[in-house]
Amino acid sequence: MSDQLVGIVGTGLIGTSIGLALTAAGEPAPALVDEHPDRAIAAAAMGAGRAATWADLEACSHVVVAVPPSLTAEVVRRVLSLALTTTVSDVASVKSNVLRDIETWDCDTSRYCPAHPIAGRERNGPGSAQAELFDHAVWALCPHPFTSAEAVAAVERLAQLCGARPVTVSPEAHDAALAVVSHAPQLLASALAASLPAAGELAAALAGTGFRDTTRLADSDPDLWADIAAANAARLEPVLTTLADRLVQVASSLREGSSEAVRDLLSAGRDARLLLPGKANTSRRPDWARVGVVLADRPGELARLLGAAGAAGVNVEDLAIEHAVDHPVGFVDLEVRDDQVEPLIVALSGAGWAAHRTR
Amino acid sequence: MSDQLVGIVGTGLIGTSIGLALTAAGEPAPALVDEHPDRAIAAAAMGAGRAATWADLEACSHVVVAVPPSLTAEVVRRVLSLALTTTVSDVASVKSNVLRDIETWDCDTSRYCPAHPIAGRERNGPGSAQAELFDHAVWALCPHPFTSAEAVAAVERLAQLCGARPVTVSPEAHDAALAVVSHAPQLLASALAASLPAAGELAAALAGTGFRDTTRLADSDPDLWADIAAANAARLEPVLTTLADRLVQVASSLREGSSEAVRDLLSAGRDARLLLPGKANTSRRPDWARVGVVLADRPGELARLLGAAGAAGVNVEDLAIEHAVDHPVGFVDLEVRDDQVEPLIVALSGAGWAAHRTR
Repeated sequence: MSDQLVGIVGTGLIGTSIGLALTAAGEPAPALVDEHPDRAIAAAAMGAGRAATWADLEACSHVVVAVPPSLTAEVVRRVLSLALTTTVSDVASVKSNVLRDIETWDCDTSRYCPAHPIAGRERNGPGSAQAELFDHAVWALCPHPFTSAEAVAAVERLAQLCGARPVTVSPEAHDAALAVVSHAPQLLASALAASLPAAGELAAALAGTGFRDTTRLADSDPDLWADIAAANAARLEPVLTTLADRLVQVASSLREGSSEAVRDLLSAGRDARLLLPGKANTSRRPDWARVGVVLADRPGELARLLGAAGAAGVNVEDLAIEHAVDHPVGFVDLEVRDDQVEPLIVALSGAGWAAHRTR
Repeated sequence: MSDQLVGIVGTGLIGTSIGLALTAAGEPAPALVDEHPDRAIAAAAMGAGRAATWADLEACSHVVVAVPPSLTAEVVRRVLSLALTTTVSDVASVKSNVLRDIETWDCDTSRYCPAHPIAGRERNGPGSAQAELFDHAVWALCPHPFTSAEAVAAVERLAQLCGARPVTVSPEAHDAALAVVSHAPQLLASALAASLPAAGELAAALAGTGFRDTTRLADSDPDLWADIAAANAARLEPVLTTLADRLVQVASSLREGSSEAVRDLLSAGRDARLLLPGKANTSRRPDWARVGVVLADRPGELARLLGAAGAAGVNVEDLAIEHAVDHPVGFVDLEVRDDQVEPLIVALSGAGWAAHRTR
């Protein structure tokens, strides 16, 4: 518990989730302000803080402005002008736009650190808020040339209290990256979902988890995303054009009876996924072969397996274990150099394991 | 437990998962055959059945051919010629192609019912198999004009034992639908993932769950998908072209400074998601307004709320409840006709609830 009071302007999904996260972290109840007071009351009733007025923001040490991108600059200026000692940050998912004419603002902009917690849901409103929304997420900090160290520190603290990792980037680099990893995925998901009606009822009935996952983002709010896309239009447009070119290229190759372009696109996409940090890339490396081995679930089995591999002179580069549900066996993928596949299979089969090449 | 023995040719992800599902359902251990016998042994060790030979298939009442699409026709013919009384089905995700020259097959094709369990994972191989892979999935049956009722019944039984729902469709309708709900999503996911390297390391670091989910399919096997895309090229190509057109249209509208096309695309995609069966569309209807209410988690609270709405003459069309994690309150969205929003909010607020319009 600290005495640093946070104010939150805008109690939608992001603002309310920040409030829930701060409360869960044992911080004082944030002051919640919304242009629709009943939304702030709803957020307060959920445990995100206490409904407050604009005047209450003066007592806050930091205020987060969590309103749609097109309103962000205006509301940040209003808070800076009203609460003369607080630091201020925002959550807008496009940054350059908010900062475009910051040098003309008639207020102390050094107290403002532009920011963007990179988390969200396809549902909006306080009812969709979650205290854990920012767990392990990146909270981008995009200080402008005159942002004070104090303002930066306030956002870093906020991010950490919400379980997120603060990462400092320039507004331009942020917007270019988000065009690819957030704004283009949204439009792709919507374009794909929008293909469904023309395909008829049967298509909807045959849609599996792949379609559902790939179009999940299509449930998002059209007005919010029109706002985001407009704010980042200059960076988003070339990304969409490149994606369209790729699809046209594959389509034309299929028309000519070749699936080479499909294979190349799949390979490029698969390799690219390895660039994502975290778990996504622990089980595959592009240049290693894989040998799958069925493993009894008993103590020491994996150690015995790796011992047998070592005794055969095989260096296991990496491994991934998958447990079979409801069966007392697991499956381990050993990643080895290509020329070690055969010696490894011979050694393991000889010692009684079922082993086979999986790639 | 029945005495109907199932044979499975091809112990990759799908074949092994079918074996696990049948075993979990208490069926006799399926006979597992693979051109790489060590893969069948691995699948058997996982509990999917017992490793067997081609000759063992003669004793089976039904054989599922679970090999890549380009090999399916050949292997189905081989099984029909070898096991002269069994019914046979397959799992290939493109059907017309497999059936193209079925009238020239020199075997009893009436025992063959083409089929496709619509489920999968972006990982392949027996080590990724799961007994519950087909739970609640659709198992498409695409009988050709001479398929026997006995063959159809055998696949329906198989689907039900695996927890799936058999749906009969023509091969042509199946392939047209799958182009939209499976094959196009795969290529879109790969195209999007393939955009990552050019965007730099920062983009990968800033990628959130939206990018991960939308590109999840990009981990799939390039060879398998080149095979599938080639088999369904005639139907897939126009779908990809339409998608590319949509992206080009949005890009050009953004270039001209308008976000109208983005808003329209998002709205179309959002409405289209409502066509998906099941949970995906229970919480939204395009023409109803929503009122969010914070709800204490105590007995009878929801009944009391609906009673208050009814007393105010408001007809609640639908509702969705969301529980706030770690808080003794939930949030309920009531869907009502637009003209009932105000009376509802007045009635609920008067009775002590925090209620507000969420759409």
